[in-house]
Amino acid sequence: METEKVKIAIIGFGTVGSGVAKILQENAEEITHKTGLQLKLAHVVDMDLVRPRLVTLPEGMLHNDLEKVLSDGEVSIAVVLVGGTDIAGDIQKKLLAAGKNVVTANKALLAERGEEIFETARQHHRCLAFGASCCGGIPVVGAIRTGLTANRISTMYGIVNGTCNYILSEMSESGKEYEVALKEAQAAGFAEADPTLDVNGSDSAHKLAILSLLAFGQKINYYEISTEGIENIQLTDIRYGRELGYVMKLPAIAEQTDKGLSLRVHPSFINENEPLAQVSGPFNAVSIFGDAVGHTSYYGRGAGMMPTASAVVADIIDVARGNAQRVFDTTPTLGCMTKSALMCPPEEIVSRFYLRLTVVDQPGVFAQIANVLGERKISISACLQHESESSDRVPVVIMTHLARQGDMNQAREDMDKLDIVKEKTVCIHVVTPPKDG
Amino acid sequence: METEKVKIAIIGFGTVGSGVAKILQENAEEITHKTGLQLKLAHVVDMDLVRPRLVTLPEGMLHNDLEKVLSDGEVSIAVVLVGGTDIAGDIQKKLLAAGKNVVTANKALLAERGEEIFETARQHHRCLAFGASCCGGIPVVGAIRTGLTANRISTMYGIVNGTCNYILSEMSESGKEYEVALKEAQAAGFAEADPTLDVNGSDSAHKLAILSLLAFGQKINYYEISTEGIENIQLTDIRYGRELGYVMKLPAIAEQTDKGLSLRVHPSFINENEPLAQVSGPFNAVSIFGDAVGHTSYYGRGAGMMPTASAVVADIIDVARGNAQRVFDTTPTLGCMTKSALMCPPEEIVSRFYLRLTVVDQPGVFAQIANVLGERKISISACLQHESESSDRVPVVIMTHLARQGDMNQAREDMDKLDIVKEKTVCIHVVTPPKDG
Repeated sequence: METEKVKIAIIGFGTVGSGVAKILQENAEEITHKTGLQLKLAHVVDMDLVRPRLVTLPEGMLHNDLEKVLSDGEVSIAVVLVGGTDIAGDIQKKLLAAGKNVVTANKALLAERGEEIFETARQHHRCLAFGASCCGGIPVVGAIRTGLTANRISTMYGIVNGTCNYILSEMSESGKEYEVALKEAQAAGFAEADPTLDVNGSDSAHKLAILSLLAFGQKINYYEISTEGIENIQLTDIRYGRELGYVMKLPAIAEQTDKGLSLRVHPSFINENEPLAQVSGPFNAVSIFGDAVGHTSYYGRGAGMMPTASAVVADIIDVARGNAQRVFDTTPTLGCMTKSALMCPPEEIVSRFYLRLTVVDQPGVFAQIANVLGERKISISACLQHESESSDRVPVVIMTHLARQGDMNQAREDMDKLDIVKEKTVCIHVVTPPKDG
Repeated sequence: METEKVKIAIIGFGTVGSGVAKILQENAEEITHKTGLQLKLAHVVDMDLVRPRLVTLPEGMLHNDLEKVLSDGEVSIAVVLVGGTDIAGDIQKKLLAAGKNVVTANKALLAERGEEIFETARQHHRCLAFGASCCGGIPVVGAIRTGLTANRISTMYGIVNGTCNYILSEMSESGKEYEVALKEAQAAGFAEADPTLDVNGSDSAHKLAILSLLAFGQKINYYEISTEGIENIQLTDIRYGRELGYVMKLPAIAEQTDKGLSLRVHPSFINENEPLAQVSGPFNAVSIFGDAVGHTSYYGRGAGMMPTASAVVADIIDVARGNAQRVFDTTPTLGCMTKSALMCPPEEIVSRFYLRLTVVDQPGVFAQIANVLGERKISISACLQHESESSDRVPVVIMTHLARQGDMNQAREDMDKLDIVKEKTVCIHVVTPPKDG
């Protein structure tokens, strides 16, 4: 069979960039055999020319001059692995304008400035491939864009941030405090030196924005995603949750409701028997519900050098085959060709809730709490109070049935005004993915 | 955005065919919005023109004349949902020769006569898309062909037959006998009137052949897959397995070993904590291990009208976009362009085993058994013997450490020759998917 040569540049020679170079070197023969493509690395651009990396490049391949890539007419694909949303965006736009197709793993850029980047690609009749931007090596972007295209997607539940999942797993399984688990995640390479974007939920929200753009076929405004991180999660709540049969996760949730599309990221209790509750450590999983296919789920390593590099190289191949361009050209949500999704206001979502109140131990306390909840039509499904040594600060844990978020917000305000309530009430969502079968 | 009209014919208007027509009718707008394609059903061909179906077709669309499709120059895609390997193959070849691209869910045909069909497509510069042939709506074919292309795949473990999984789940969870569970599966629509191909493992082997062709990039001879079904599984073994912490499944296994590629389907005990052990009822799951990506897994409904139709329509879209053709053209294993895989001889595979011996209850029995195993260098990892009322037929259950299949075969022969062994020894594989993380 004839083979076709494809010249590639990598911009950003960090962890993932090194992994991509490694795959292109080590699996070259396998890839050519399976696809008929010879993927030839021509340039690797980085500011740092001396730091030792995982792979050894031929003399002269590593340089710091983006212009050389822009002016090399033989390079058809540029892999941009530069983080952030400013310079990274400018680099991508320059490359597209110079006629290069762009493969990227930068979820923040696509979530926050996607429309601008996608429009630049269209203007120059080029495409962007970004399978590596969500969930590392798990081919979930491809699944939504090709495998599930026939479906109206109603719901997605994803554990899409390995750092948070690792921290929550360690807190839950080994009883570590948040700060300890975070430090360990950093030592193990599962968390960045500055973990803010991971632990505050932004990274999950970025991925949710990208997946939703593809799944729901409407423009998504990243800034409308209601996002809450895990920084304030207390071990005591994880323990009470477990006692009631629930595991704490940070799911990214997309749900078509009769009030619009609800997109949200927040710490949530999930029943311990749900498959998503069993996704532990740095792993990711996404459950997608379609009207024809029912429930499908995708699992694997959501980050790391080689898993992410696997997705980048898959995208290189998809671009080289010409397939990425065709899908890009006919996907109206990549750019400004569709209307914005009607978003469900946060207070209109319906959820179960976990509440932990700190109250004084005296007769009639529970009646007062139940009263406040009852006024907002929130009914209690379970409660838990252990015997306490102190009588002026006793924790009472309540699980509710389904309730409007707005009603719950009101009820919390009312409860916290009661004399018997001594601290701000902790409120955590309890989520239940749809049943299939 | 401009839209493109694509005319489609469905050959075979049974369960899945009706599901495809339903999606094309009901989700037409959604599909056009997401892909820019207008999928127009032009012909539905079936011998039975009167049976009521799920969908109502426009007057004249349903007919029994394949020639009308062959001669309709506007039809570019034929969806062939005719079962079996004889007539179905001839129909596919005729359609390809007439210039139609073919979408099919017929795994038996592709596993047994794939080379001939694929070569016909190549000869006429057309393509076949067969994502629906494996695991219903789970986009696992697409994952291997595009999402994981950068990887050398080492191992696949799949629960790919919903009928067997339903039966084994019912036996395991509700203690039903095989015959009872099979009848229930038939009543619930999870098993055919003639369930032979499902329960004897052939259906799983068909799917394994197709997935392996894509995963390992070499020609696969379906008839070399060592295949054993669940027809002879006894409830008593399922119970002993559970007692030891194992769940009975029928996995399809592909494994690169240093003796070649091992492809096999056999009833197996899987540790109850493994994710695959938790796939229950009619669901399917496939775990794939790649050198870069590590462990990824895909889960969903492996059969049924709408899940399979979801995959068929995804393939129609992939063909209409032109993407299926490009992947088909550059996949050397679809046809006779590659050499055959070097297969690992069955006796060379290494596995753990579960043995149930029926022995007389007398001193020295266990020593004799252990002796026979020891001679073949098979060591025991666990054993189980309950107190028995009878003394001439006592069951002894043994779990072994890893052993060569050939050695185990010899040991069984030797054991069954012992005077103390009163019935043929039951031997079931105990499989352990690779660890990742």
